[in-house]
Amino acid sequence: MALAPTAARPRLLRAFAGQPLTPPPIWLMRQAGRYLPEYRAIRAKAGSFLDLCYAPELAAEVTLQPIRRYGLDAAILFSDILVVPHALGQTVEFVEGEGPRLEPVRSERDLFRLNTEATRPKFARVFETVAKVRRELSPDTALIGFCGAPWTVATYMVGGQSSADQAEARAWAYRDPGGFARLIELLVDVSVEYLSGQVAAGADVLQIFDSWAGSLADDQFERWVVAPTRAMAGRLKERHPHVPIIGFPRGAGVQTPGYAAKTGVDGVGCDTALPLGFITRELSGRVVVQGNLDPLLLVAGGEAMARRVAEILTALSGKPFIFNLGHGIVPQTPPENVAQLVELVRR
Amino acid sequence: MALAPTAARPRLLRAFAGQPLTPPPIWLMRQAGRYLPEYRAIRAKAGSFLDLCYAPELAAEVTLQPIRRYGLDAAILFSDILVVPHALGQTVEFVEGEGPRLEPVRSERDLFRLNTEATRPKFARVFETVAKVRRELSPDTALIGFCGAPWTVATYMVGGQSSADQAEARAWAYRDPGGFARLIELLVDVSVEYLSGQVAAGADVLQIFDSWAGSLADDQFERWVVAPTRAMAGRLKERHPHVPIIGFPRGAGVQTPGYAAKTGVDGVGCDTALPLGFITRELSGRVVVQGNLDPLLLVAGGEAMARRVAEILTALSGKPFIFNLGHGIVPQTPPENVAQLVELVRR
Repeated sequence: MALAPTAARPRLLRAFAGQPLTPPPIWLMRQAGRYLPEYRAIRAKAGSFLDLCYAPELAAEVTLQPIRRYGLDAAILFSDILVVPHALGQTVEFVEGEGPRLEPVRSERDLFRLNTEATRPKFARVFETVAKVRRELSPDTALIGFCGAPWTVATYMVGGQSSADQAEARAWAYRDPGGFARLIELLVDVSVEYLSGQVAAGADVLQIFDSWAGSLADDQFERWVVAPTRAMAGRLKERHPHVPIIGFPRGAGVQTPGYAAKTGVDGVGCDTALPLGFITRELSGRVVVQGNLDPLLLVAGGEAMARRVAEILTALSGKPFIFNLGHGIVPQTPPENVAQLVELVRR
Repeated sequence: MALAPTAARPRLLRAFAGQPLTPPPIWLMRQAGRYLPEYRAIRAKAGSFLDLCYAPELAAEVTLQPIRRYGLDAAILFSDILVVPHALGQTVEFVEGEGPRLEPVRSERDLFRLNTEATRPKFARVFETVAKVRRELSPDTALIGFCGAPWTVATYMVGGQSSADQAEARAWAYRDPGGFARLIELLVDVSVEYLSGQVAAGADVLQIFDSWAGSLADDQFERWVVAPTRAMAGRLKERHPHVPIIGFPRGAGVQTPGYAAKTGVDGVGCDTALPLGFITRELSGRVVVQGNLDPLLLVAGGEAMARRVAEILTALSGKPFIFNLGHGIVPQTPPENVAQLVELVRR
């Protein structure tokens, strides 16, 4: 089932060999998605959103769409971070226009409802998607596998939905740190298996999305963001020493350099709010920097976008750097602005 | 209508004279609110939430409730940052359990619907509340007046509701910076009048809440957070040179020291995610630091809260410091935990 690594080396991987590339490689978070009419066409015939995530033929097609349109340097597996809790047996639904709804896990006792063995058949379908995509991609395009970080996935599992302050998970972590740690450990274990399977199926790079890393006090950040990510990175490196890992601790701000140093990730995704001066001073040259154009500038396009792209390139291109957004593409993005962005970066 | 300043000096003000106090003064964001049964009793008879904000007798009573219970070092006017757009003539409603709903302002043309003159009778009622509270407070308790920062108020005015990413306001700012600047300038003007009126009525300290400062790229942060706050602080200092101003740029992270240096505020509210080491290194001694206990620890209480309170006191007490939370008290907070917190800080 696993594919042999391709002989030619995707350009994106050269950034992880310590080379600043001109122009930098580019891919965009949520590059496969609702802003593309060809995505919406597939989505319409796929049943539910999760059905699409588990349908190798369709998910592979959706993964490849932005590569065909824009010739980006990497494809990222089309999936969702909530595939992991769903595969574990938690009830997960995506309510149109409202986001995910999960039957919450609120205490250590609820963890008995989760079943690691049950993940196998569901993960297998994701791995099939990965293998399909890798077969169809050209050798110079990287394929990025991903999962949510344990903390971020836990915020959804505990809260039952997206929330501005992740209060439910944070409250459990304070009330019963031992019980909450059990959930986090379970997620570390299952996420390592999940990412490892993606590598075996053909993923060249891995990204760990910690979208809600920004709400935690420093001690909680160390315990629930840094430590689990370090554990994952360590175990993945043992199995796949040559597969780069990008961590994306969104909103980590001041704590981002510490996260980079302590977790052992190879690259760090920088959100839009991280100032360019800070990235240059504290991150560039220590890890591969990835980011950080505001997705809303990709909606606005034109001169404003061009000016900021130039600023980012000037600030970050001297060291290993991957051009990306600071957060995912939003649905109202005009597809032609994405084409313009790629041209600006490659000019 | 304006009260003469009280002869005795509230203890909180001594922090702004550059004195580290032991124990530090303490007040808590959203200390008047739903977690208190006596608040809920008043709220039940007040009609709408905005009716309560505009009812001097009731709003003063609610402002004073936590002072009576806990003897905090400051009362903060009970009000809402959306009083300003409401007073300007924008439709503002508070939907129970859902938060505010505004008829959005989306372009420069919509600004003609807003009327600065119309604010007078509504602001007068708030000033009456301030005067009432100041009369009833003991001279050693400070009274804090406040408003929302122009950027944060604009995110609600443009978005029509609370949102995780403030996309509507950020998109307008990119699409039409000149038009958006008109809205921000209008808010600077009216907010300066509003705060100045609160001082005339008896407020000893002012706080500017920039709750959504954390979503902006560095250039946008300078333009929409730093510059308007600097303009407000400058104009307020001309009129009231001895009234300290606290800025609270929630989520500003890395940019907080720059905000402190450039805006000219006297104190900076630090949210929960700002690490203690960073606050000590970059802010303590340059401005009065205020913060930053996680409001969810106040829900958990007990040993976990006691441990963290001790860490905060150890880290921040050596320089001028005001104990507070990193964000507002949440409704599920047990009132007895607040009493315990005050005791821990004053022990």
